[in-house]
Amino acid sequence: MSTRRKRIPETARKVFEGKIFDVYQWDQEMFDGTTSVFERLKRPDTAQVVAVVDGKILIQVEEQPDGTRPFPSIPGGRVDPGEEPLEAAKRELLEETGYAAEDWELWREMDPVGKMEWTVYTFIARGAKKVAEPHLDAGERIAPPQFLSLDAFLALADDESFYSPELVSEMLRMQLDPARKEAFRVLLGI
Amino acid sequence: MSTRRKRIPETARKVFEGKIFDVYQWDQEMFDGTTSVFERLKRPDTAQVVAVVDGKILIQVEEQPDGTRPFPSIPGGRVDPGEEPLEAAKRELLEETGYAAEDWELWREMDPVGKMEWTVYTFIARGAKKVAEPHLDAGERIAPPQFLSLDAFLALADDESFYSPELVSEMLRMQLDPARKEAFRVLLGI
Repeated sequence: MSTRRKRIPETARKVFEGKIFDVYQWDQEMFDGTTSVFERLKRPDTAQVVAVVDGKILIQVEEQPDGTRPFPSIPGGRVDPGEEPLEAAKRELLEETGYAAEDWELWREMDPVGKMEWTVYTFIARGAKKVAEPHLDAGERIAPPQFLSLDAFLALADDESFYSPELVSEMLRMQLDPARKEAFRVLLGI
Repeated sequence: MSTRRKRIPETARKVFEGKIFDVYQWDQEMFDGTTSVFERLKRPDTAQVVAVVDGKILIQVEEQPDGTRPFPSIPGGRVDPGEEPLEAAKRELLEETGYAAEDWELWREMDPVGKMEWTVYTFIARGAKKVAEPHLDAGERIAPPQFLSLDAFLALADDESFYSPELVSEMLRMQLDPARKEAFRVLLGI
């Protein structure tokens, strides 16, 4: 997964504004001095959470209304306009699971798609506790959370339906490198 | 990397047509019976090539005109309208490197981005040979190819600038699983 960050140039024109995706175009000078119209997308950032509950990692099984099969995921969703990524992470964890935590840390910040200005923030939430009932949108159907050991969580990288493609490479790297996995265990505080 | 394939529904409206990206919207029935406008993108598919030359894998170092630093990649590019993915793979290999091969096989077919109809086809080209000089577009700057052993190729998964994010997870899985790596070696015919 590439983490290269390619920003839309300031001279770019917004040529379409969608529900999620905005499209920008600009005149790019090519290697031979000619110009060509380049295009890039922008979408709301995503905040997601690796929540630690009694030494285990919280995952959920989620459905979306367009008919895909249920899939395992970690809590998360779009960062709203004007919202900080950390606020969005706290809000999504609470809405989707009813859990809250005091001890937060940004773990990873990735731009997974080359031609799209889109950052996925992954936070660690240590010492998460249930404080409310979930409050789901009309477009969400989420089963009560499950709690996995670190090894079981890393094994989700082998589940093709696991819905955090941005994290899969990192989870595989931890399977390959015990020191990397141990550093993550320390970060989780388990 | 998710390989889940989510097609744009037939009832969707094309609301924007860009240079690369088209935007579609449709009314999606939600879990509570209300409807909401859903949005998805479509872009030309990509064909890329793992070319085998005298028992080694061909890679190249590429620059793009928008100022990113040179990055290692395998040959590939957009599938043109009306073109088959295999034709595009053969064309891109020839244009970018001057190499051609007789013995082709589709290896992987992935849809790397959830909300985008975009398939990346990765082909194996066995017995590739140089038959011409490269013929580059004004938007391409590509150094002469280099030839890597299988192990050196798989190690590219650890290079953050490697420009085949769709392949990185698979390359890490081969590092984890000797049987998987051996099957790939057999597929490459080396």
